[in-house]
Amino acid sequence: MPALAATALRCLWLQAAPVQQLTSLRAFQAAPRVGCSLQQRWGRPCATAAAAAASGGGDGAASAAVDLGSEPRSLPQPPAADEPLAPGLYVVSTPIGNLEDITLRALRVLRSATLVLAEDTRHTRQLLTHFGISTPLHSFHQHNERQKEGLVLRQLRQGAAIALVSDAGTPAINDPGADLVAAAAAEGLPVIPVPGASAVLAGLVASGLPTRQFLYCGFTAPKASARQKQFAALATQEATLVFYVSPHSLLAALGDAAAVLGPGRRCCLARELTKRHEELWRGTLQEAAQEFTERGPRGEFVLLVEGAPAGSAAAAGAAAGGGEAGEAEIVAALRAAMAAGEPPSSAARSVARQLGVNKKLCYALSLGLQPEGPEP
Amino acid sequence: MPALAATALRCLWLQAAPVQQLTSLRAFQAAPRVGCSLQQRWGRPCATAAAAAASGGGDGAASAAVDLGSEPRSLPQPPAADEPLAPGLYVVSTPIGNLEDITLRALRVLRSATLVLAEDTRHTRQLLTHFGISTPLHSFHQHNERQKEGLVLRQLRQGAAIALVSDAGTPAINDPGADLVAAAAAEGLPVIPVPGASAVLAGLVASGLPTRQFLYCGFTAPKASARQKQFAALATQEATLVFYVSPHSLLAALGDAAAVLGPGRRCCLARELTKRHEELWRGTLQEAAQEFTERGPRGEFVLLVEGAPAGSAAAAGAAAGGGEAGEAEIVAALRAAMAAGEPPSSAARSVARQLGVNKKLCYALSLGLQPEGPEP
Repeated sequence: MPALAATALRCLWLQAAPVQQLTSLRAFQAAPRVGCSLQQRWGRPCATAAAAAASGGGDGAASAAVDLGSEPRSLPQPPAADEPLAPGLYVVSTPIGNLEDITLRALRVLRSATLVLAEDTRHTRQLLTHFGISTPLHSFHQHNERQKEGLVLRQLRQGAAIALVSDAGTPAINDPGADLVAAAAAEGLPVIPVPGASAVLAGLVASGLPTRQFLYCGFTAPKASARQKQFAALATQEATLVFYVSPHSLLAALGDAAAVLGPGRRCCLARELTKRHEELWRGTLQEAAQEFTERGPRGEFVLLVEGAPAGSAAAAGAAAGGGEAGEAEIVAALRAAMAAGEPPSSAARSVARQLGVNKKLCYALSLGLQPEGPEP
Repeated sequence: MPALAATALRCLWLQAAPVQQLTSLRAFQAAPRVGCSLQQRWGRPCATAAAAAASGGGDGAASAAVDLGSEPRSLPQPPAADEPLAPGLYVVSTPIGNLEDITLRALRVLRSATLVLAEDTRHTRQLLTHFGISTPLHSFHQHNERQKEGLVLRQLRQGAAIALVSDAGTPAINDPGADLVAAAAAEGLPVIPVPGASAVLAGLVASGLPTRQFLYCGFTAPKASARQKQFAALATQEATLVFYVSPHSLLAALGDAAAVLGPGRRCCLARELTKRHEELWRGTLQEAAQEFTERGPRGEFVLLVEGAPAGSAAAAGAAAGGGEAGEAEIVAALRAAMAAGEPPSSAARSVARQLGVNKKLCYALSLGLQPEGPEP
């Protein structure tokens, strides 16, 4: 593909993971080693050596649809030794509970990488040992991230194939790895995603909630006031909301969510995902607060909350354009104030002042808001 | 665990995928068969038979952290026949390009399921054949979804283990499967996510853009006016934006995004993810529009766009509260109008009327907006 190769030479082009043709569960053809660009930065075009890879080995494997290999019917063959990996930073997803949730490529990359960067080396050591993998492990966590980043980038520049993993799931989301990926990307070093398990998507697709749009919000804020603001800012968001919630803040988070987003919003609490006691609890936010207050929260949770009704955002926007806060926004602000302990009359006064809307309207709306959802 | 079992009997509790202890790449201990609840609905507590599963086989495999099995050092053993799967709807992620991106559990579930529901049976047949799997395939796509749903639910009620796959990646996101999952969840039938590859996360973690929050927006709207509205509604969104873009609308989408969100926003175009010619192109929206106009778009794209600067949403909210649209909102609306072909003066008039803001301010702001980004 000379045209493509020429384009690649003069543009921001990153060749990453060459497709592996898999001929059996255990025998993989290995990746051709490709060069890598060392100087690419955001928005600054430069040459990359990826063109070499693009011009070689064009066997039609890169089709528009899922590539099913040129010999899909080949039978299992004896295990082949893994050939060296192409240089780059491999962002490797690992299981979130069930050890079977690892991909064939993740195993190969972990086996063949120069080294593996792990959040907790003891933890990842167990995973690697389980699969008979003895690749050297180096710790890379939020406390040593800054000092190690330079070292890792230097090794990447020298052509190392480095795997980045987190304790569970897809790394570089809420992990120290994100900054490393950004730094590597800024230098034009190849970053190769090796997709796999993630609690966000596992929870979402099994929740039964709409999946057309979803907003991943990270962990719920640990402090009550920050958390109430966090929810209030999402009151008219129509996408399904996805949060991580630690067990010790679950009850408070559910109480605040019910108070601010409304007690009747549907939600799903995904607990122990992919493990033996995997649980997908479904109900309203108010029911969730009651349920988990009764039984006590255990384990890490993914909290999925139905988005606001269609038109909420537009209504809020139109209200903003018309110089008036929308009813949804007023209600959200009232709920936040009342959740913080203000009585309806006082909440109405402060919200009216804060949003520049009619005090009587606020008071009327506040009366309709029963203090629902148990206090955490 | 009698306490847990008792809780399970009276609450919305869904036992799903029992953890498999994996002793080698190919020898898996199979799942104990568990009963399933047939009557669970949103927010309506009922008994489930999951307690039986919860009370049996409590061998400590379900620990709080990643479960690494009780015998992590066991060596590969001869393949064991797969035991039957627990009943339920298994939402199974499949590769998005590289066939190695399939998990060990996905292979076992596809092999052991009663049947596999596939968007395109010919496509999935190739995948299964590649892995030597001969489970019966049934088509389940947007055109027969309604008529098949009842049939599938009936089989699930009778205890079938049904795997749902899409053509590529994680099903039930932008797929017909979402409604089936919602229907199964509404009946309290077990829904078991089998996580794996997804283009959304693969693109995100390799993009180098912030991952702390992200909003998956689905496909960009096919019509220009709808697409400009879609972007305008996201102008102050601080989360990283993730879109799917089909090749024939890429240029128009990039032009609109540059016009509405601002030409200088950083973005990443992920193309041919996990395939041989995987590409992560990074630059600004304006550069992206130029680049792909020159080389012509090929393949499916994931478009990732940096969120608005921190404080944008709060500023817009405060402006709304104060009865005035924020500057960001005015600028977004002006850009949308100008992208649709209106000259600055006319755009300023219509935006001022539309948002109820000062006409001169709009005109001043419109003058600063050069018609950047090439026309698609």
